[in-house]
Amino acid sequence: MKLQILGCYAATPRTLTNPTSQVLEIRNHLFLIDCGEGTQVQLRKNKIRFSRINHIFISHLHGDHFFGLPGLISTFRLLGRDKELNVYGPKGIKEAITLLMKLGDSWTNYQLVFHELKEKRPVLIYEDDKVTVETIPLDHRVYTNGFLFREKPSDRKLNVEAVGKYNIDKAYFRNIKSGNDVILDDGTLVPNEVLTFDPVAPKSYAYCSDTAYRPELVPQITGVDVLYHESTFLETEAHLSGKTKHATAKEAAAIAKAANVGTLILGHYSTRYKSIDLFKEEATEIFPEVELADDGKVFNL
Amino acid sequence: MKLQILGCYAATPRTLTNPTSQVLEIRNHLFLIDCGEGTQVQLRKNKIRFSRINHIFISHLHGDHFFGLPGLISTFRLLGRDKELNVYGPKGIKEAITLLMKLGDSWTNYQLVFHELKEKRPVLIYEDDKVTVETIPLDHRVYTNGFLFREKPSDRKLNVEAVGKYNIDKAYFRNIKSGNDVILDDGTLVPNEVLTFDPVAPKSYAYCSDTAYRPELVPQITGVDVLYHESTFLETEAHLSGKTKHATAKEAAAIAKAANVGTLILGHYSTRYKSIDLFKEEATEIFPEVELADDGKVFNL
Repeated sequence: MKLQILGCYAATPRTLTNPTSQVLEIRNHLFLIDCGEGTQVQLRKNKIRFSRINHIFISHLHGDHFFGLPGLISTFRLLGRDKELNVYGPKGIKEAITLLMKLGDSWTNYQLVFHELKEKRPVLIYEDDKVTVETIPLDHRVYTNGFLFREKPSDRKLNVEAVGKYNIDKAYFRNIKSGNDVILDDGTLVPNEVLTFDPVAPKSYAYCSDTAYRPELVPQITGVDVLYHESTFLETEAHLSGKTKHATAKEAAAIAKAANVGTLILGHYSTRYKSIDLFKEEATEIFPEVELADDGKVFNL
Repeated sequence: MKLQILGCYAATPRTLTNPTSQVLEIRNHLFLIDCGEGTQVQLRKNKIRFSRINHIFISHLHGDHFFGLPGLISTFRLLGRDKELNVYGPKGIKEAITLLMKLGDSWTNYQLVFHELKEKRPVLIYEDDKVTVETIPLDHRVYTNGFLFREKPSDRKLNVEAVGKYNIDKAYFRNIKSGNDVILDDGTLVPNEVLTFDPVAPKSYAYCSDTAYRPELVPQITGVDVLYHESTFLETEAHLSGKTKHATAKEAAAIAKAANVGTLILGHYSTRYKSIDLFKEEATEIFPEVELADDGKVFNL
């Protein structure tokens, strides 16, 4: 699992800071999460192949999470894309994109599928044999979802030596990797744990931006390996966080601690602060495993 | 008159090239012309004060001329703008921007005035005591206008020595600068040309992008000081220009020659070519006074 930050600053794109967008590589998928203005250029700068993006998740319809999407959809068209593109986002996203395509008489020549969200409880929005994605309802000024990405458990790993020792035919390997025992020709049962090793534990990633402090989300994200939680402000600006429905670094850390996550990644920083290190300092007082997102940064998880 | 190119490349924003946007400084106005994705960052990079922009002219509703506008309008709001902002563009632009503001529940706290265009003939869309702006109907895949910016003639310049010699009272100066003669107390008429010098000649700038070769626009732009004309292609790709309704460098030069303009500035280059110098080479075979737009370039006209 690999997370590549394209942009992680609040409000407006600036010369050296980009609004929110990130790419999660998970079991060979490349999921694009949010798409602020300039995301397509950030994709190029970070050498991400456009053709590998088939699913885009939009948390909410504020410009700094969404205004790069019309251009990206348009660029996919100009690049001759033919693969289906799936967009998951709040109700209204289809109307907006469709209107822009209509006004420019620029319809995509690939299938563009919108999955509009309006539920206020967690919903499974994507599933295949390798991963699931569900919404994490957040508390912001407009309807907003985070997203919880979970790998499904992998097959168990074959113990080649043990399988050879019992002279088991290849035809059974798939069955063994799925966790089944084997009964030999002489009737002996060989338990699965003798024939396999544990697989790599499935990883999970919770993306929570934008949101006010929201302890209600703790049960859903408890135990995730990595939590990205917005920290627009420091505690010194706590009076702004309530009004704007954003969180402080301290609040993000409190969520991480209560949910017992592996690592907390902070982001969505207001640009009013001199250094983003201040966010880490504040958060580590509550929760030790803190990382700072930054534009262009890659986390190998 | 000063023209600052923020972006002048066709189709999609890239790491080193920006879609169309430019700023025309004319008689203390700062007019923003087109607004591709990333324009607000280009404004910052080029150190243009956001608060000086009160009029934005959008030629057409293709993404590379327009997808930066929602973000710019949103950023104006976040920066606490209170001055009115005027947007001139094709019918539909108001609906698009309004829908995006509605979906984000992000209404501007300043007056946002849309001037929607649908006429297919030249229309005067802006006028004050210093400048006029009229549309230049172009020929593109969707409804498109160029814009013709003209300074109004300045007052004549007072010949301080001559005025002193005739002992003329200050109270008459305004009248003299407007071009009137003076009758002295003894009844002598002093003709205006004795009392004044010619003012600086008013300048004019025609912006024509995007468009197929369109000789019909020559009468309207004849004699302008500066013509910006798109040249998406070279003649080697002339077969594409008809289909996509774009012009070649040669065609842009033919328009410049027929309209007897002062200087032709080329732009809106396809990124397929190795060097934009090729556009200049092709155009100068037809018309000598050719300049190349490039991102960040400033023309002091």
